[in-house]
Amino acid sequence: MDAALQLAVENLMARYVHAIDDDRLEDWPGFFVEKGRYRITTAENFERGLPLSIIYADSRAMLADRVSALRHANIYEAQRYRHVVSSSNFQVVRIMHTGDSILFASGRYLDRIRLNGDGGTPQFEERVVVIDSRSVDTLLAIPL
Amino acid sequence: MDAALQLAVENLMARYVHAIDDDRLEDWPGFFVEKGRYRITTAENFERGLPLSIIYADSRAMLADRVSALRHANIYEAQRYRHVVSSSNFQVVRIMHTGDSILFASGRYLDRIRLNGDGGTPQFEERVVVIDSRSVDTLLAIPL
Amino acid sequence: MDAALQLAVENLMARYVHAIDDDRLEDWPGFFVEKGRYRITTAENFERGLPLSIIYADSRAMLADRVSALRHANIYEAQRYRHVVSSSNFQVVRIMHTGDSILFASGRYLDRIRLNGDGGTPQFEERVVVIDSRSVDTLLAIPL
Repeated sequence: MDAALQLAVENLMARYVHAIDDDRLEDWPGFFVEKGRYRITTAENFERGLPLSIIYADSRAMLADRVSALRHANIYEAQRYRHVVSSSNFQVVRIMHTGDSILFASGRYLDRIRLNGDGGTPQFEERVVVIDSRSVDTLLAIPL
Repeated sequence: MDAALQLAVENLMARYVHAIDDDRLEDWPGFFVEKGRYRITTAENFERGLPLSIIYADSRAMLADRVSALRHANIYEAQRYRHVVSSSNFQVVRIMHTGDSILFASGRYLDRIRLNGDGGTPQFEERVVVIDSRSVDTLLAIPL
Repeated sequence: MDAALQLAVENLMARYVHAIDDDRLEDWPGFFVEKGRYRITTAENFERGLPLSIIYADSRAMLADRVSALRHANIYEAQRYRHVVSSSNFQVVRIMHTGDSILFASGRYLDRIRLNGDGGTPQFEERVVVIDSRSVDTLLAIPL
């Protein structure tokens, strides 16, 4: 991979994470191509090849619907994420409105990225979020 | 941003973090320009535009004073930090002298960096440390 | 350091971490030169210049023996690591088979890397893993 390409991809990763951590969830679907796929699964299910997903969407419209539901449902306690990502490995700290912080999730992003030609902004064709622990799933509200 | 510039900035970030984590706090003011500003605040205050700061300094001399006070006051228990930074997001582990480690703080650096011309080492004109949780403030001794 | 070289080194770091986190421990010795040295020690011992190590090996064969022992001994509970690395600082989350995750270790890699000429893959001549806490040692099974 050449340096310019690597910079463009790192830039995509950084903007993705900041959109979520800054609570600009409406920007989130725009990181995917129109028919982009987003899936959260556990390492255990992923390694067994099981199609089970905690979250699954296969279009930008589905991602937008999910954000819309999150905004209106208000079923979850006020919280934020803080991602740290290195070499596609991630750790996410979750900060509750009360100030309580915990190491909420860790895992790996498996991405297929469309480069969109000269100078175009890369987008995800597929982002599979493989979380390490099977204990996290019922708590997931905000995307990872 | 071109690749050489990005490398220079990443290098600044890395050296900053290692100076703190290695307890070379006397090197810390040198990462700022003479009239550089350093501020730690919470996400809550930052988003409301409140000028409240946990730590505030607007010159290298004030930073040096702070380090000097830390060295002589000895009011805090022996501790170290370990930073992990990605895309300006950070997580800091605090390690006490006893060996106890906790995820101490997470947040984001908002930086204004002076490039100092051809081959010069970049320096911070301003570094605002926005910490995610409002629970952390009273415990802060070492800079973030 | 030029951009191509930095990319090659970052690539080594990334592949190293993924080999361990993906439980491909048999690939681990191959990141070292034949007479490569691998050592885990605590910050406390390191700073005092003490030669004490939690793990010490000075050849690829010793690393392979260690992996072999791990595979056959089965004395440790099923677990995985997830590394996040930035500027040679690391944090490792340990995920138990039960799903329990903890921030297991933090520290710094001190590396001597052989570049292996034009286009060759860099390898470690020495990797010293300096862990921050002295409380971690008795629990170490998988390499860091």
